[in-house]
Amino acid sequence: MKKYVIVVAGGTGQRMNSDIPKQFLLLAHKPVLMHTIQRFYAFDSEIDVIVVLPQEQFNYWEKLCLDYDFSIPHRVTAGGVNRFRSVKNGLALINESGIVAIHDGVRPFVSIETIEKTFHKASIFGAAIPVRDMVESLRYSNGGSNYAFNRDFLKVVQTPQVFKTDLLIEAYANATTEDFTDDATVVERAGKNIVLVNGNPENIKITTPLDLLIGEKLLS
Amino acid sequence: MKKYVIVVAGGTGQRMNSDIPKQFLLLAHKPVLMHTIQRFYAFDSEIDVIVVLPQEQFNYWEKLCLDYDFSIPHRVTAGGVNRFRSVKNGLALINESGIVAIHDGVRPFVSIETIEKTFHKASIFGAAIPVRDMVESLRYSNGGSNYAFNRDFLKVVQTPQVFKTDLLIEAYANATTEDFTDDATVVERAGKNIVLVNGNPENIKITTPLDLLIGEKLLS
Repeated sequence: MKKYVIVVAGGTGQRMNSDIPKQFLLLAHKPVLMHTIQRFYAFDSEIDVIVVLPQEQFNYWEKLCLDYDFSIPHRVTAGGVNRFRSVKNGLALINESGIVAIHDGVRPFVSIETIEKTFHKASIFGAAIPVRDMVESLRYSNGGSNYAFNRDFLKVVQTPQVFKTDLLIEAYANATTEDFTDDATVVERAGKNIVLVNGNPENIKITTPLDLLIGEKLLS
Repeated sequence: MKKYVIVVAGGTGQRMNSDIPKQFLLLAHKPVLMHTIQRFYAFDSEIDVIVVLPQEQFNYWEKLCLDYDFSIPHRVTAGGVNRFRSVKNGLALINESGIVAIHDGVRPFVSIETIEKTFHKASIFGAAIPVRDMVESLRYSNGGSNYAFNRDFLKVVQTPQVFKTDLLIEAYANATTEDFTDDATVVERAGKNIVLVNGNPENIKITTPLDLLIGEKLLS
């Protein structure tokens, strides 16, 4: 079955206090985004890679690919004003039914096993995502009062979020809002169940300078 | 006003896949627990430090203090069968009213500012804890079905959790269960409100080998 991965990299560098968007920061001497793409290529060298980037970063990315001799085949499409639009732009490049993973460009430590498991479950059930247990104490706070909140039934969501292409495209087409923090929620809103698999704990999202330091250590 | 900190260090080394309990692992050439105690000493050199350790680790800790020339005054008391009992044993050493912080022995990166803020709010309102925003997508899963869970009103709890001594001692004395993941919940169950302050993001709990690597980077 045809496989796709839409790698969403919309960072503009603000949260990193950096001029360089976080997806281009160097991790072990190579831009984060290249590490991320390589994980999916290692999973399946036939996978169709679609990278969603802010349009103003196209030239910079092209230059990086030359500078770093990055040869994994991929297509690039423009990001939208929010995550929903960015993913939708990526989905527009899908031209054959199959399975599609949506993955954060700044999650370069996803394991091959996590990718395999989510693709496998999605191919059977239509929709699968990796999660990890919540290990911290939580409080519910609406700004006024606050109270202890039971963590036992909460899971922390990772990516790749993997779906049958027809299912995800239809869910995005029929969504009545664009206010989603992940793709599983778009599909759920369309009335489908999501299968949870255990992700790998190192599969963190690089969003702060601290995360980048962690990343360096993970790779060394 | 008299200040106390009860540093709870109950680790036995299992989650670290290590023979050395996590509170004794070396971080920048010094046991984690010593870094932690130093933060509170830097906040106030008059603070009364109570360390709760498994009884079988007393001798090892004493030896470490000699080996590392660790001279911050502190008392040691034995941990109990669970977190609740361990904190209660620490509270038993309080002999004068004041303010008490309960802190995880494996959170060596708490900032002086976080300590100051929580002590300040607790001295006014009786109970204060540091929290951070939830930045990840969540799902509620009871083993059967699962669904997207709104993270907007959830805060991730850190330590130090700081209280007026009389308030905390009474809450622990009157608790009808021992099944608590933190001290704020014990106090809340006694009918008191908890004030939330913003903790520092580096204030992570060292529970995995990965966290220790992060810690090394944070200190370098």
